[in-house]
This record gives sequence, C-alpha cells and structure tokens, in this order.
Amino acid sequence: MALQEIACLKGRRAKLTGFTVEIIAVGNELLIGKTCDTNSNWLAQQITRLGGKLRRVTLVPDELEEISKVVREALARKPDFLLTVGGLGPTYDDKTLQGVSKALGKPLKLNSEALRMVEEKVRWMAEQGVLKKPWVTPERKKMATLPEGSKPLSNPVGTAPGVLIRKNGTVLISLPGVPSEMKAIFSLHVAGLMAERSNLKYAEGSLLVEGIPEPDLSPTIDEAVKRFPEAYIKSHPKGEEATSRIELHISTFAESLEKAKGRIGEVIGWLEAEARRLGGNVKKLG
Amino acid sequence: MALQEIACLKGRRAKLTGFTVEIIAVGNELLIGKTCDTNSNWLAQQITRLGGKLRRVTLVPDELEEISKVVREALARKPDFLLTVGGLGPTYDDKTLQGVSKALGKPLKLNSEALRMVEEKVRWMAEQGVLKKPWVTPERKKMATLPEGSKPLSNPVGTAPGVLIRKNGTVLISLPGVPSEMKAIFSLHVAGLMAERSNLKYAEGSLLVEGIPEPDLSPTIDEAVKRFPEAYIKSHPKGEEATSRIELHISTFAESLEKAKGRIGEVIGWLEAEARRLGGNVKKLG
Repeated sequence: MALQEIACLKGRRAKLTGFTVEIIAVGNELLIGKTCDTNSNWLAQQITRLGGKLRRVTLVPDELEEISKVVREALARKPDFLLTVGGLGPTYDDKTLQGVSKALGKPLKLNSEALRMVEEKVRWMAEQGVLKKPWVTPERKKMATLPEGSKPLSNPVGTAPGVLIRKNGTVLISLPGVPSEMKAIFSLHVAGLMAERSNLKYAEGSLLVEGIPEPDLSPTIDEAVKRFPEAYIKSHPKGEEATSRIELHISTFAESLEKAKGRIGEVIGWLEAEARRLGGNVKKLG
Repeated sequence: MALQEIACLKGRRAKLTGFTVEIIAVGNELLIGKTCDTNSNWLAQQITRLGGKLRRVTLVPDELEEISKVVREALARKPDFLLTVGGLGPTYDDKTLQGVSKALGKPLKLNSEALRMVEEKVRWMAEQGVLKKPWVTPERKKMATLPEGSKPLSNPVGTAPGVLIRKNGTVLISLPGVPSEMKAIFSLHVAGLMAERSNLKYAEGSLLVEGIPEPDLSPTIDEAVKRFPEAYIKSHPKGEEATSRIELHISTFAESLEKAKGRIGEVIGWLEAEARRLGGNVKKLG
C-alpha cells in the first residue's frame, strides 16, 4: 500500500497510524560486492512486521563526507526513524559517528554511560580470559565517544553500544554492522520504540501461477488492484520467462492481524479463481 | 557512449583511471524485506572487477515520484554510469521508465527497435508453444515504450529490453530486476562499455586473525594503512566478539593485475608477521 493510501485510510479511520523509516548502510565491503547487505533486508522485515514503512535504503562507503551528506539528505526527508548500520567499531575506517556528528552539528564527546558499558564489557572479557587485563585503550574509548546529546544503547553481544539521538521529528539510531550485534540491539531497544508508534498489523500471502506469461496475467492484476485498493499486489516472475511461472505476492496493513489476514484471503481467493479461468495452474505458497 | 567517444578513450587509454557508478534498485519487495537485493551485490562485484568504483546504491519503492526524484539526485552527482534495476516489466507497478522519462524530461515513445525485439521474442514464445498466438498486447508494447532518445539493449532471456540513454556525462542504463535477465543484459551490453572506461585492475586477499580482539589489532591496521597507502585494509569481526576472530580484507586497484596482486601479497606478508608478533593465530583465506 502506498503512503497516499495510508493517508487516505488515516482520513477515513483516524486511529490507523504507521511510521516511516530510512536506512543508511555504511561500508566499503557493500560497494565492492564483498558483502551482500543482508542487514537491511532483516531490518526491512522487522520494520514491516511492526507496521512501519521503509521508504529508502542507501548504501555508502566509509567516507566521512559521504556519510554526513547522506545523513543530512535523509533527515531532510523527515522519516520518523533513521537507522544507520555499520561503522561503529574501533578501527580507523569506522566513521559513522563522525558523520552523524558532522551532519547534526553535535560534537563528539566521551559519553560516561557509554564508557561504563565499554568498561563492563572489557572487564567481562578479561574474566573470560580473552584479554590479559581490563584496560580501556584509545580504540575502546572511541566506541564510547558519541555525538553530544546521544543516549547509548547497550550491546549484549559486542563492545560498541548503539547510539540514539533525536533531531527535529526524527529518532536517529546508529547500529553496529556485525549482524548478531545489530539484531540484538534492534530487538532490545528499537523494536519497542517502533511498536509504540503504530497500531497497524501487516499480513502477506502468495500464489504461484504457472502457464500464463506475465504480460497476459497483467490485466487480471490490474483488475484486482482496482477491486482491492487496500492490498498491494505484485507479480514476481520466477526463472526463465518461457516457463511462465509467476509468484503473485499480496500484502496489506490493517488495524488488526485478523482483518489483515482476512483481506489477504479474499484477494487470494479472487486471484486464484481468475487465474484458473485463464487456464493457469495455481498453487498457494507458504 | 558513442563509437567516436570509445575510439577517443581508447587512444587515451594510458591516462584513464577508472569510472564511477551508482545503482538505483527499484521494488517494494526490497523495502518490505521479501527480497534481499542480491542484484546490487552481483553488480558491485562486476563493477569492481572492471576497475570501477560503485559510489552509492539506493533502494526505492515502485513509486513514480520517488523514482524520478532519486534518478535526478543521482544524475546531479555526475557518475559515469547510473544503473537502475527492476521495474521494466509489463505490470501496473513497473514504473522505472516512467520515472526515468520524468527525471530526464524525455517523453515515453514506442521505440521501433525495441518493438522489433519484443515481437521477435513473442514469435519465438509462440513457436515454443508458450503463447497461443504471437500477438503484441498493450502490456507487451509497454516494454517497448522508452524515453525518447533511448537505445534498447537486447534481452537474451526475457522480453523486456534493457534501455540505454545518455544525459550530460552519464550513461544511464535500465536493467530488468529478474536476476537472470539483469545478468545477461549486463554481461552482453554493459560490461564492455565499462571495460573501455578503465585500465585499472582489481585484486584482493584476506587473512583470518584469531586471538586478538579488534580494538587491540586496530593500531597495527592503522600502521599498515600508513605503510601501504595504495591498499584498502578493512577488518571484519567474525562471530561473537569474545571469540576474537577477525578477517582482514585487503583490496587495491593498479594498472595491471600483476601489480595489484603483488601489492596485496606485500600487505598480507606484513600484516601476517605483525599479527603473529602480537600473539595471534593467522590463516590465509581464499
């Protein structure tokens, strides 16, 4: 469902609310193709399930100017949440917080709460025998040096805390790029904040239609889009075109999960009947 | 790029340094997390091997305004190549060419060369028994309706041709989102154009260092960065932090593959010796 449609739904039923999100994924490894950005894909799933709309994802290299520029651009679009992922670590090319600091005009300062988190982690690592002694080196202090006004978010997996800072209407949250750390901080600190901002529930369903080429199924999809304006219907061709295997994916937001699932059922029932009428072989997926 | 331009670039080959690229990936499925953007990851690898720098990747939904806005933003940054991926198909939400048309101010028109490609494909599908008769429906004509001044790029796998159009210094190329079609059109039509723009060769290598936490390895990385300014060195923590397994990834561009590989060997040799001196367990990867 497009944002205009949500706005329309909002007008009709004032209680429906969602939230918007942008992601900035930082890391040269993403741009040379060494790493596929699975972090943003995982976050997209979480955000959608929480009733949010991910509006844009931007992948940028580990360059201070580029990071601060893209943070400023994203803030100007006024998303409810702006997530940065990656670049919070101890090495020379972990520059995300410098970029955020520059974009917000908030100088980097040693944050005492973050320092306490880093010290605790270092003590724990020393106890585990991973470190010879629990010293907080300049590299570890860097992970506790945050833009002024930030709130550190404890990291149950690694050392670098997440960082939360508010700017105008946007909650900006910086997460580490190591997937296990990113997921842990998101689940612990961010998911709850997002859930508070929405009473929308998301549901989805898929049909696999075989034997009708996509251009010939297209008028049926157009009709379904008109009949079911609150559902979003998208065709995904599978494999080579000559095999004519099309996944029809239907998704929707509603004020309750029951309502969302009911709507999906209705669209799927209608599409199934129409695709069979056109001579297609139809299977329900997952 | 016109043939004369290619000839001219060939003549200046020795002076060429590289080329810059941006990708815009279009599709709601990317933003709801249904699909991970593996297309951009594959393209990033190809671009890097061809000597190019991928500067930014932007994921946007199937919305006309959003697509045209992000195309205009990317063109303003003047990359040598701008690739859009997805949204070239026959359905109502395939809006990439509308977005490109709007961003460039070039109206959409039925392109006779593209129409010939679509007709050929439709004839072939009819011969294969996939279509009852080789008609070119409005949905198929849509795939041959391109911004004025475009050159269609033949699609050996599916129906929708790729689209090439030049704007100021940028070569804008629209590719379909189905991975097999995207890869085929890139390999057939785009890789060669990019190769002409660069005489740089890319090489990379990795070391796995165990037993030294990343913050304690960081000063060694800083020293390596100073010693080998032409290499890019990045640490990637693997698994949980307490296990202290760090991949050091080294990459570089040089005017020959031999030179690039030699430089990687040198950096790896130095890092290996230093990490061992710090008590780390070191393995070469890949």
